[in-house]
Amino acid sequence: MTEQECAEGTELKVRPANEAVAAAVAAARRLIVSLLHADQVPEAEMAEVADQLTAVADRLDARVPAMADRIAASRATPYREDAGRRDLVTGPQNAIAPPLCLRGKEDGSVSGAVTLGLPYQGPPGCVHGGVSALLLDHVLGAANYWAGPTGMTAELTLRYERPAPLFTPLTVTGRQLSVDGRKIRAAGAIYAEGKACVSAEGLFIAWNSGSVSR
Amino acid sequence: MTEQECAEGTELKVRPANEAVAAAVAAARRLIVSLLHADQVPEAEMAEVADQLTAVADRLDARVPAMADRIAASRATPYREDAGRRDLVTGPQNAIAPPLCLRGKEDGSVSGAVTLGLPYQGPPGCVHGGVSALLLDHVLGAANYWAGPTGMTAELTLRYERPAPLFTPLTVTGRQLSVDGRKIRAAGAIYAEGKACVSAEGLFIAWNSGSVSR
Repeated sequence: MTEQECAEGTELKVRPANEAVAAAVAAARRLIVSLLHADQVPEAEMAEVADQLTAVADRLDARVPAMADRIAASRATPYREDAGRRDLVTGPQNAIAPPLCLRGKEDGSVSGAVTLGLPYQGPPGCVHGGVSALLLDHVLGAANYWAGPTGMTAELTLRYERPAPLFTPLTVTGRQLSVDGRKIRAAGAIYAEGKACVSAEGLFIAWNSGSVSR
Repeated sequence: MTEQECAEGTELKVRPANEAVAAAVAAARRLIVSLLHADQVPEAEMAEVADQLTAVADRLDARVPAMADRIAASRATPYREDAGRRDLVTGPQNAIAPPLCLRGKEDGSVSGAVTLGLPYQGPPGCVHGGVSALLLDHVLGAANYWAGPTGMTAELTLRYERPAPLFTPLTVTGRQLSVDGRKIRAAGAIYAEGKACVSAEGLFIAWNSGSVSR
């Protein structure tokens, strides 16, 4: 699957709330990358950087809702637009998210595009195997959402065929295979330079409000 | 497995280079959390926050080694202390890492402790299934490292028995099961409040320098 093919279809990613939010998250992602090498910066300068970052964190903490309210809101309903904004894999407001650009295609499958840098490294030069698992779990879930019934992961099997490289455009595909009562099966893979790196098969159990509450 | 049991054993986490680095990464982790709700801050104020963060990112980018040098160094050797500092799961300099506190135990197994917040959310109130996969892939790899030969993930099977809750101490265990030539098997699980939430079995292939280079 080429990048161009990934660009076709319906974008499943939620947009950032506004330009200011997008710019702040972009800066946070740059900080995550550079902090990896903070040990190579003189300690006195890092102390100033830490003070600056702490001041911004204090400022922002004072403006967002109280944590208890954030937690309560996050549990209210599973599929709101703001939950999508905070998503760990595709979310424009989650600085941890690479983010993956995900599209739903006419044939019922989904396809995502992402290029990963040093924060996501496992073996030298390669994507951490657990990050590949995270991407595939997410994309299989999205494939279920796009095709019809979706639910929570019950089983996930990953096969690592070759290392997925960093700094290389990756395509992550997912497709719903079957629905049998509440049992949903989906499969997908991560491709780099036209070759499958990691493939996944998953069993999902259709949502039941009781099964996701604590 | 209790938290106290996790606290026993040899700490496998690398320490931050200095206090200033630790403080900067702590602030970055707070920023990741608060930026999730940046849409609820007035846009004019977020624009100021974005400018402040961009200024710090510019400052830090100018002080760390050039990206080409960082990439080259990251590929030089797989198990240096600085690679541990940048690790995605346990690394004190990787703001994405929760971080997991990981210990090697006398019986040859490893055990980690972590409590996850909103950046790692999947279903409401629950850890993202892909994050559980990331933690388990990592801890099974660490179990191999602690017990003897280690290598790259070839197959990983995850069974999700119940949702792993956010804001609750989780224990992540791993144990090497067998070594047969280059084939290494390991298993582990994530526990919350004494119950298994997710279990994993993995097949790993012992390191061969040719297999991880691109």
